[in-house]
Amino acid sequence: MPHIDLGNELPGIRSLFSYRPETARPMSELAEILLRGPSTLERWERELIGTHVSGLNECRFCTASHAAFTTAQLPEGLDLNVIRADLGSAPISDKLKALLEIASAVQRGGRSVTTELVERARAAGATDPEIHDTVLIAAAFCMFNRYVDGMATFTPDDPAGYAAGAQRLVRDGYLPLAGAAPAHQSA
Amino acid sequence: MPHIDLGNELPGIRSLFSYRPETARPMSELAEILLRGPSTLERWERELIGTHVSGLNECRFCTASHAAFTTAQLPEGLDLNVIRADLGSAPISDKLKALLEIASAVQRGGRSVTTELVERARAAGATDPEIHDTVLIAAAFCMFNRYVDGMATFTPDDPAGYAAGAQRLVRDGYLPLAGAAPAHQSA
Repeated sequence: MPHIDLGNELPGIRSLFSYRPETARPMSELAEILLRGPSTLERWERELIGTHVSGLNECRFCTASHAAFTTAQLPEGLDLNVIRADLGSAPISDKLKALLEIASAVQRGGRSVTTELVERARAAGATDPEIHDTVLIAAAFCMFNRYVDGMATFTPDDPAGYAAGAQRLVRDGYLPLAGAAPAHQSA
Repeated sequence: MPHIDLGNELPGIRSLFSYRPETARPMSELAEILLRGPSTLERWERELIGTHVSGLNECRFCTASHAAFTTAQLPEGLDLNVIRADLGSAPISDKLKALLEIASAVQRGGRSVTTELVERARAAGATDPEIHDTVLIAAAFCMFNRYVDGMATFTPDDPAGYAAGAQRLVRDGYLPLAGAAPAHQSA
């Protein structure tokens, strides 16, 4: 049960966005830009970074949500469970593996991101904007995860709900979570 | 030295906001709403929460910046160094002490926020919106701190620069950090 009366029965961050729409707006915009905006990282790669950090932070709602968002956008032939079971041997690029290592460091603390980790990512082909966005995506999930769990929001158990949410997310993006029009309908 | 070429010599988060203005905008808006928007918590109380979390995350730039922002808005007779030296015996309200305990829990992880901590804050007079905003402020600083240190941004040593930045912040707020007009000049 949430720590305060949120005035709704919505799950996870949706209940918080409904309770406090003023902060929901910039938070959903940040997610939309980072996870779905123009980037040389695929949307599923960015969602995988978010899923990975949410797992490290043990945030059940965010892990289940973003795992579903990743799965819904994965290229043919890739299986998220296989990837997450052993990142080292996963059939993903060395660049993405190196970026996931940077994300793990960010989750432990900003000062854990070393020159060595950054150099390794660069050697595997990561660009500066990709390194930047990986750090910020990981940092942003450290906020979202703490917000969702720090308020003890409702975490549904039924996987079907997360899968349905993923279909909406892929179609409309993050802005509607804060009550705004989907990005493709806005100016 | 920053992990990537940010194309500017600005300190801390300002260098990142200049590098990536798209994400700077919602991030500065979130800070403006949480730390300076309408609230029953004083601005110095909210800045103190941010300073406290930044200290726990060992983010030198954010701690020095928000300590200066707190000091610049402290009521007559209060001394931030005295407050931070021993929160338990500090001459601040029991409500603020309880909210700082919640912020400390959020810093450790969202699941560390217990019903007991929330009940203690409520018994000391904290309202639901105050508890909510404390959790989100603490969570947001866990993002900002990781972003600033995860990119290894430049942290000036000279206290005068932070004091000058505090005067600008008190006057114009957070939006100009992302290149936007101050809140009091916008619609």
